Amino acid sequence: MNVFVVGVGLIGGSMVLDIKSYYPEAIIYGIDTNEAHLEEALKLGVIDKRVTLDSLDIADIVIVSIPVDVQLEIIPNILDTINDDCLLIDVGSTKEQICNVLEKHSKRRNYLATHPIAGTEFSGPSAAHRGLFDKKTNIICEVEKTAFKLQEKALEIFAKLGMRIRYMDPKSHDKQIAYVSHLSHISSFMLGKTVIDKEKNERDIFDMAGSGFASTVRLAKSSPAMWTPIFEQNKTNVIETLDEYISNLQQFKTLMEQNDFSEIYKEMESTNHIKQILKGIK
Amino acid sequence: MNVFVVGVGLIGGSMVLDIKSYYPEAIIYGIDTNEAHLEEALKLGVIDKRVTLDSLDIADIVIVSIPVDVQLEIIPNILDTINDDCLLIDVGSTKEQICNVLEKHSKRRNYLATHPIAGTEFSGPSAAHRGLFDKKTNIICEVEKTAFKLQEKALEIFAKLGMRIRYMDPKSHDKQIAYVSHLSHISSFMLGKTVIDKEKNERDIFDMAGSGFASTVRLAKSSPAMWTPIFEQNKTNVIETLDEYISNLQQFKTLMEQNDFSEIYKEMESTNHIKQILKGIK
Repeated sequence: MNVFVVGVGLIGGSMVLDIKSYYPEAIIYGIDTNEAHLEEALKLGVIDKRVTLDSLDIADIVIVSIPVDVQLEIIPNILDTINDDCLLIDVGSTKEQICNVLEKHSKRRNYLATHPIAGTEFSGPSAAHRGLFDKKTNIICEVEKTAFKLQEKALEIFAKLGMRIRYMDPKSHDKQIAYVSHLSHISSFMLGKTVIDKEKNERDIFDMAGSGFASTVRLAKSSPAMWTPIFEQNKTNVIETLDEYISNLQQFKTLMEQNDFSEIYKEMESTNHIKQILKGIK
Repeated sequence: MNVFVVGVGLIGGSMVLDIKSYYPEAIIYGIDTNEAHLEEALKLGVIDKRVTLDSLDIADIVIVSIPVDVQLEIIPNILDTINDDCLLIDVGSTKEQICNVLEKHSKRRNYLATHPIAGTEFSGPSAAHRGLFDKKTNIICEVEKTAFKLQEKALEIFAKLGMRIRYMDPKSHDKQIAYVSHLSHISSFMLGKTVIDKEKNERDIFDMAGSGFASTVRLAKSSPAMWTPIFEQNKTNVIETLDEYISNLQQFKTLMEQNDFSEIYKEMESTNHIKQILKGIK
């Protein structure tokens, strides 16, 4: 089995590491525009061979794990190149635009749109590791547009990797993921910015930071190259979540200004319900 | 050595668990208004005996770990009761008001104002555990106002618990902690609220949440009883941080509306500097 991974970072790299362990006969071919990453992936055993897009005709499976703006351009070309039995999977954090772009492609049935909810704040081949997808949710969009045999192939792999599958349409995916993922990243980045700006005047402020602060700003370590095109592609939905978040913060501030601390207590108490919700998240 | 803990929750409970292990001869006396917590603390071995404020005359050390509004009323009374060689420590998250309240107290020298940066989103005696303070920062305010022998006693204990000591004035403490702790809690609570509100229309949205979301809303599990009085006592500073945070979020939103994604990239890239900062936080 010839497995190609386009983008040898956290998600693509971890996926082929798992695939190699469950399918020892698989040969993993790595493609990346970043030479250093490609060398590193080879050295770390994430990939077996480094190749270019020209070799794609021998692929049985292609996993595309690159920034969502770049994949809009590259995936149609990859689809043109692969053979008729080859499965192409993308793992991007936005699904509407890529599904639109591929809608009329003659090889649409070779493509499966997925979004494994398994990212972390780390990136690059050194972040790749086995078991990343165990018990994680994988969202599959427009499953009916993929050839049935290729659906089966993909689902077998996802099952071995330990993933829970959830089916959604691309529009709902992008709308909902803005709330539970994209907004968290902006909240984290802007929290980090607010405190870094303050540190310029108040030296050593970070000596006072504990694990709570670390937790809320953890996502501000994330890669701008990956996240900028996600925010761009999901602009309308993300702005909607930002509007609601800012309005909730403003309301909290107004309650403080009005000394309405009993209402602040109630707000926090009702949000404590998040305890039950978070229990299900590994 | 008779050690009294007023408030047998996460911080007070963890502190006496560590003290007991380093000073096996210590007898731990627990005081709490919550009967169930007191029973639980006794059952879990967090305290040796349950007593009331009437027994405080035999105390060598009193650790007060209760909501910051309640301690403003209770600490002056405790100071009145304890003997002249007794050390009273509070561990509250705000320091300006308690230091002001005690400024003219005849037993001011028996009091040490501290803030161990070791809280988590959990509370109650079942959350208490050994080693909580290892390598954590403990902020001590107005150290010069505490009797030298009692400073020594406290520092010996903090050293055994593994804490780094940082000295600050109460005003600076409250101003800076608003940025690295209080704001994180509000950001987390309002993020949780935003998504919970959305879930009412978009069912099963939390199935899509991953570890990133869990990390940013973790603090929304925190106790409203503990946090409402912190926000109230540190109102001015917290509102200042909220203003700056909201303004950064609004600016981010404006950049998105203007399609200025190269500026958004730059914002995120410069905030990535948080990586280096977070390295030092356990």
